[in-house]
Amino acid sequence: MVNAPSSLLQLAQAAQAAARALAKASPAAKARALQLTAEKLRTEWEGLEAANRVDLAQAEATGLSKAKLDRLRLTARIRDDLIGGLLQVAEMPDPIGAIESLTVRPNGLQVGRMRVPLGVIGFIYESRPNATVEASALSLKAGNAILLRGGKEAWHSNRALVQVLQASLIEAGLPAEAIQLVPTPDRSAILEMCQLAGLLDLIIPRGGKELIELVQREARMPVLAHAEGVNHLYVDAGADLESAVAIAVNGKAQRPSTCNSLEKVLVHATEAPRFLPRLAAAMQAAQVELRGDPRTRAIIEATAAHEEDWSTEYLDLILTVKVVDSLEEALAHIARYGSRHTEAICTNTHPHAMRFLHEVDASLVLVNASPRFNDGFQLGLGAEIGISTSKLHAYGAMGVRELTTTKFIALGNGQIRD
Amino acid sequence: MVNAPSSLLQLAQAAQAAARALAKASPAAKARALQLTAEKLRTEWEGLEAANRVDLAQAEATGLSKAKLDRLRLTARIRDDLIGGLLQVAEMPDPIGAIESLTVRPNGLQVGRMRVPLGVIGFIYESRPNATVEASALSLKAGNAILLRGGKEAWHSNRALVQVLQASLIEAGLPAEAIQLVPTPDRSAILEMCQLAGLLDLIIPRGGKELIELVQREARMPVLAHAEGVNHLYVDAGADLESAVAIAVNGKAQRPSTCNSLEKVLVHATEAPRFLPRLAAAMQAAQVELRGDPRTRAIIEATAAHEEDWSTEYLDLILTVKVVDSLEEALAHIARYGSRHTEAICTNTHPHAMRFLHEVDASLVLVNASPRFNDGFQLGLGAEIGISTSKLHAYGAMGVRELTTTKFIALGNGQIRD
Repeated sequence: MVNAPSSLLQLAQAAQAAARALAKASPAAKARALQLTAEKLRTEWEGLEAANRVDLAQAEATGLSKAKLDRLRLTARIRDDLIGGLLQVAEMPDPIGAIESLTVRPNGLQVGRMRVPLGVIGFIYESRPNATVEASALSLKAGNAILLRGGKEAWHSNRALVQVLQASLIEAGLPAEAIQLVPTPDRSAILEMCQLAGLLDLIIPRGGKELIELVQREARMPVLAHAEGVNHLYVDAGADLESAVAIAVNGKAQRPSTCNSLEKVLVHATEAPRFLPRLAAAMQAAQVELRGDPRTRAIIEATAAHEEDWSTEYLDLILTVKVVDSLEEALAHIARYGSRHTEAICTNTHPHAMRFLHEVDASLVLVNASPRFNDGFQLGLGAEIGISTSKLHAYGAMGVRELTTTKFIALGNGQIRD
Repeated sequence: MVNAPSSLLQLAQAAQAAARALAKASPAAKARALQLTAEKLRTEWEGLEAANRVDLAQAEATGLSKAKLDRLRLTARIRDDLIGGLLQVAEMPDPIGAIESLTVRPNGLQVGRMRVPLGVIGFIYESRPNATVEASALSLKAGNAILLRGGKEAWHSNRALVQVLQASLIEAGLPAEAIQLVPTPDRSAILEMCQLAGLLDLIIPRGGKELIELVQREARMPVLAHAEGVNHLYVDAGADLESAVAIAVNGKAQRPSTCNSLEKVLVHATEAPRFLPRLAAAMQAAQVELRGDPRTRAIIEATAAHEEDWSTEYLDLILTVKVVDSLEEALAHIARYGSRHTEAICTNTHPHAMRFLHEVDASLVLVNASPRFNDGFQLGLGAEIGISTSKLHAYGAMGVRELTTTKFIALGNGQIRD
């Protein structure tokens, strides 16, 4: 390997050339590469596990936390999920070249929009090696090339997975350079990628707040980032309280380290005396620490909530609870403290459901369902490359469509402008 | 007026509050404000003309070019165009709250996307005062607030127009702060706007290359910018040459200062001997200077084209011509020198039309029509706030839809995640 700067520049140039070829690739070839990857994950699993064991051994030696080790581990279940996801993406309709609504102008010009790839995507992510396969699959289906900068803990796993992906591309007659792993998984590679304007059309950072802020500050090209999820559940007057407790427990405790977990509960004052004791019992069973405002603490035992609790994403078994007097107060609280990620209401009152849906500004707004559904797979996108909380281009889970754009096309027979 | 920084911050905060109110405004109120503006443009035209005359007198005194004076002038034709545009935007379906494809997931959860406003738009533009009305109308229809930073030459005109717009908002029961003019039309206001992350959701710069690059470099929020248009017409073997000449003349000479004008012609070698003399005669009649590669200059009189000619946007009565041997050569030339703005082919060969449409990467790709159609009004968007040549969020003419986004919504009856 030559020195990093020229090497990364060369990778990006090769990716751009591959992206131009991929933009013209047949839907069948792209689907074939995805199917081949699924096959190879099964047939070459032992080798992938061996590479993963090298990463796991190194990580254990350096004292990585158990949670991080778990995220690093390639298990049979992850393999099966990846295979299922690859086959699902392979079978989805190919988006590229589709023409949306060709309409006829008064002068006879036919005007429409054709879906096209974005070009080259820079994807910067942390320890989960399965993201390597998921992001590559979506990028390929969308006709893009992708430059993957995974975490250094997952280096051997990522390299082995990219070898499988590239072998599949070649076997399907597509350029291997469409999926490339950045060979220097350190911070300098991130900063370098941020400078590759004209070569990278988009950077998607997925990881901690510090990583995302770094990329947003340094990148000279568009960035699609997801911020933290300070997610609320508002339990309305007259809501089904059994369902509200189940949704709160699922939202908080099913997988508390994820950005779509529940962090705050707001409950209408008329329901608080009946709802809060049931919530407290269920949360105690789930080993969740409760914090509360004074009105909550008058009804159940909870630590006193401080001002910063209302804007904190715990990503842990902690939940803060507040009693409110109206839907309006809940809406105002969410507008002030929410992070535009995932917001939910439990209600049986139709106008309240409609107001909440229309007025809450968040990437996913739910009525009578768990915030944990804010996930590309759960929402029906097949898979996701991240959840955007910026509003430009994509707001919410990003699947294949969010990795494309549209250009205008016009078909004439000699039209000129008056 | 207090000092500029705090004043601009206050304007932006008031705009954000107005945006929240506007996001909930009824479609009828927004349409009413647009209709009232159209009415007032007619009834209060004399006052607007008087304000415009102050700008024109100052501009003449400072020696502004005739072309710039023309762009500054509010004429009866511009008034009528603005009125027509306002009424057309008023009558368009209101995009906000529309739900796209509510589908049912296997667990019964109904998932869809709801169209919502972006929030607050910063619009930075140069001398044309009609842009004040066009941008405000699109922003209002899309449920956004807009902070207008017009050029200082148009200060009195813009202020008078914004007074009309704000009076219409108030009469329709909407917050006047949804449309505001930045009171310091100098460069420092641009830099300040670029720092208002968290208050401005988007900045759209429209003007010269220097302005756009400044905003792209400084802005701490997403920017939708249009770069220059190095636009080509490829005349294929077997094309209708009469139509090709008409399209070339229309593209080049109808309004040469616009970004959708034609700058380069590529002609297939088999047509060059018949096409080029006809092109030269027509361009001479339109007072267009021709530059050409050696093969062109072997057939017609033209200045020798230099390497930089192929990538230059003249915005003037200059056209550069090249003879190519194939569609492939034309596609490669466009990929190398084009600016992804507007690209056209004249052809009668269906597979060539299809290849050009699919393979050329530009915000508008045309077959047998003039590049001058790359304009929101001409493409049927009602009006436009600019033409984006970046691919994220909007690629090409930006109308009402491009000033909105979608959020996910999910309707359940107690669903939780397994």
